[in-house]
Amino acid sequence: MPSANQSRKSQEKPREIMDAAEDYAKERYGVSSMIQSQEKPDRVLVRVSDLTVHKADEVVWVRARVHTSRAKGKQCFLVLRQQQFNVQALVAVGDHASKQMVKFAANINKESIVDVEGVVRKVNQKIGSCTQQDVELHVQKIYVISLAEPRLPLQLDDAIRPEVEGEEEGRATVNQDTRLDNRVIDLRTSTSQAVFRLQSGICHLFRETLIHKGFMEIQTPKIISAASEGGANVFTVSYFKNNAYLAQSPQLYKQMCICADFEKVFCIGPVFRAEDSNTHRHLTEFVGLDIEMAFNYHYHEVVEEIADTLVQIFKGLQKRFQTEIQTVNKQFPCEPFKFLEPTLRLEYCEALAMLREAGIEMGDEEDLSTPNEKLLGRLVKEKYDTDFYILDKYPLAVRPFYTMPDPRNPKQSNSYDMFMRGEEILSGAQRIHDPQLLTERALHHGIDLEKIKAYIDSFRFGAPPHAGGGIGLERVTMLFLGLHNVRQTSMFPRDPKRLTP
Amino acid sequence: MPSANQSRKSQEKPREIMDAAEDYAKERYGVSSMIQSQEKPDRVLVRVSDLTVHKADEVVWVRARVHTSRAKGKQCFLVLRQQQFNVQALVAVGDHASKQMVKFAANINKESIVDVEGVVRKVNQKIGSCTQQDVELHVQKIYVISLAEPRLPLQLDDAIRPEVEGEEEGRATVNQDTRLDNRVIDLRTSTSQAVFRLQSGICHLFRETLIHKGFMEIQTPKIISAASEGGANVFTVSYFKNNAYLAQSPQLYKQMCICADFEKVFCIGPVFRAEDSNTHRHLTEFVGLDIEMAFNYHYHEVVEEIADTLVQIFKGLQKRFQTEIQTVNKQFPCEPFKFLEPTLRLEYCEALAMLREAGIEMGDEEDLSTPNEKLLGRLVKEKYDTDFYILDKYPLAVRPFYTMPDPRNPKQSNSYDMFMRGEEILSGAQRIHDPQLLTERALHHGIDLEKIKAYIDSFRFGAPPHAGGGIGLERVTMLFLGLHNVRQTSMFPRDPKRLTP
Repeated sequence: MPSANQSRKSQEKPREIMDAAEDYAKERYGVSSMIQSQEKPDRVLVRVSDLTVHKADEVVWVRARVHTSRAKGKQCFLVLRQQQFNVQALVAVGDHASKQMVKFAANINKESIVDVEGVVRKVNQKIGSCTQQDVELHVQKIYVISLAEPRLPLQLDDAIRPEVEGEEEGRATVNQDTRLDNRVIDLRTSTSQAVFRLQSGICHLFRETLIHKGFMEIQTPKIISAASEGGANVFTVSYFKNNAYLAQSPQLYKQMCICADFEKVFCIGPVFRAEDSNTHRHLTEFVGLDIEMAFNYHYHEVVEEIADTLVQIFKGLQKRFQTEIQTVNKQFPCEPFKFLEPTLRLEYCEALAMLREAGIEMGDEEDLSTPNEKLLGRLVKEKYDTDFYILDKYPLAVRPFYTMPDPRNPKQSNSYDMFMRGEEILSGAQRIHDPQLLTERALHHGIDLEKIKAYIDSFRFGAPPHAGGGIGLERVTMLFLGLHNVRQTSMFPRDPKRLTP
Repeated sequence: MPSANQSRKSQEKPREIMDAAEDYAKERYGVSSMIQSQEKPDRVLVRVSDLTVHKADEVVWVRARVHTSRAKGKQCFLVLRQQQFNVQALVAVGDHASKQMVKFAANINKESIVDVEGVVRKVNQKIGSCTQQDVELHVQKIYVISLAEPRLPLQLDDAIRPEVEGEEEGRATVNQDTRLDNRVIDLRTSTSQAVFRLQSGICHLFRETLIHKGFMEIQTPKIISAASEGGANVFTVSYFKNNAYLAQSPQLYKQMCICADFEKVFCIGPVFRAEDSNTHRHLTEFVGLDIEMAFNYHYHEVVEEIADTLVQIFKGLQKRFQTEIQTVNKQFPCEPFKFLEPTLRLEYCEALAMLREAGIEMGDEEDLSTPNEKLLGRLVKEKYDTDFYILDKYPLAVRPFYTMPDPRNPKQSNSYDMFMRGEEILSGAQRIHDPQLLTERALHHGIDLEKIKAYIDSFRFGAPPHAGGGIGLERVTMLFLGLHNVRQTSMFPRDPKRLTP
């Protein structure tokens, strides 16, 4: 199927080389015509990760990217990369390869995709720079399937260099905007591949755990008619001749599902916040992992289910994604994530006492600032040796209107946040399920009742007590891996200044 | 925990009854104070579905809704409902219940939630109107946990009545707008419970199958900077001081993930179409089940994976959701869904021939109209006995600019739709992975290159051949169950005229 006849404009340099002289290997290399599904050849492509001594002396076909190439006299060494795996390949002048073929191979632009036929050979000395250390591929045929442009906007090796090494040894690293502007290339690095495989695992573990616990998945609308959570920070959409809004959370809909007897529901979907914050942990669009659950008598029934779900995620990640964790740690060293079973639950007043003891001045009904959250995280880690804990019983004054007041203390509420490495990853509460109390609380917060009529009406025909919470996927990924910016854990992050790619 | 002291305004009628006379059972019934997590009582609530003869003569606590109540002399029969299950409960004057208590029970508004303590008693004659046919509950205590308002906007029994029965017997049914306006109640019906449990199952089976096939889940942004698929039918968002758009599909991002070496990806998320269509099958926001996959040599490798994924979903639904299918069929009778293994694949020209033979006049490069799609579905069903098939090789002229032309016939393309019961549920294609050809095709379609620069640039640094497709979740649910309107399979549907609840 590969043929050298249909090279395209950008591929003229290889053709020149090929045409230069009589060449006994000329059918063995070249630029393939574009794969348009012309044929269904009977050829098996072997995975790079399967190139081991078990395949020694076999002839195999491999499709991979040219990660690097280095010509050396009559030989050319290529490193062929496939996802997080790579193997050394050797094109050497001899029976199979001509001088021209070696030159052709040496001139293939990095990141091009090639089909290679070669013999798997055991090597005497381990190849430290490749994941497949015990074999190399002796190339008999090489065809370019998709040619990369010669100038890459960033080098993959620079993109996985630890910052310390960059600073101390004066070697190149890649800044965040360059990465994000060229995300397709940045995502090819072993670090990015690991981050997003692990993130996919978080979603999988979240659902697996909840389905096992009897939860049902729901789909909630993102275009809504009124800004249910107040009106600030909401994006407006032109909806035919009217305006609509983007949902700041699926909460209203999760609660309606509870009122509709689904009892235990979860959803995974985008959440939109029109906040003009340019911090390391804010995005204007992120992925919410949301839970809502009817309970019998006490909202701690729900808190325990949520905390256990997170614990199951942590355990699953440490069990199934050890390779990915280690890959990320190579570039971004960090302590393993620690947690307790059952999860530590502190009350807000206990946290206040710890902070005051550490010299912080705070009022009883004051919310935690970001620096105080982080300090508290360090104090909790010192005292309890955990990176994950629940902070329960927030002051009513700092929570949304639909939060259930604590019946024993009117200044407190049945609400909670959860923290990883000192940063908030979940906010939740028992919700008010009584329409009369809900109305009172909305009025107290100065909310226009007309705008939340549908919300309040949902509770008029019998509503079970319920609680829930929303988890930020990108934050969980970031904090579990000890990364420092939520843009590292969003494939295509959105913030006030970035809408592309 | 339940106490009769804190009844609220809307609950005064029950209080009156309670206070009316000396009452030996007065501690055994009443309106509970709102559950604010005051206590953690050591009480086990038994599921209605677990009330069987195995529990005969046991005293149990149950929390359920009052589905119906019927007083009859010194007795009151309640049907207590929990999700799709219900049980008969009897409150009778005697040792445990006073006259006042029976009257109280008889006056509880339908759809209220109650906690009931009762003895499970075997019945001699099966109770045909309940799912728990062999037992009834002899009530000893009954407390209202959440009182419903007395007038329901729709009756659940009307909402599950087959239309035929309504028409022929002149009995009430509920029209679609009433249902959707009062969705929280409509979703409580056995039919709705079954529809959305099955829909949750579709998502679960989709992911389960793809993860088993080595696919990875991705999250793609919904706010985008340019209308990637032309510009028509796109919603505009105010994004700080600029405009942005809502993604009409995750396609660009799925393709970027392929260019970023993730090889096989899927995502489940909202898709937005600003189409002013008020048909039975269009929504302005729906849930896309999207797949994209790099292939080796032929896009049929991908077509086969997608078709097999759908087949695994159909098999899984028929195996795991038989009860739900039967529940929906009671209200909406329909033939079981039929499919072949492997899936039938027809070429567009074959379909044209079948339609022409049936008397339809169509040009070779004309797209299928909705009536012709349906007719074709019937013809295919007659000839091949399948409700699911692939239509391959669409005319290039009717497909988007990024569709790979067929190398053997410039008027055809490497693109396909998939159909269930004669309606399209998936559209897909081999995508052009060569930036030069992609540019040519975009220009041919009159697309502003500046607006799709990021898209085209994604392919400049080596791109594997790839194909994919997007499935509409609501359509799959509707057509699998043989329903007639996509609003029945969207919990909170959005169309040009509906944005609430």
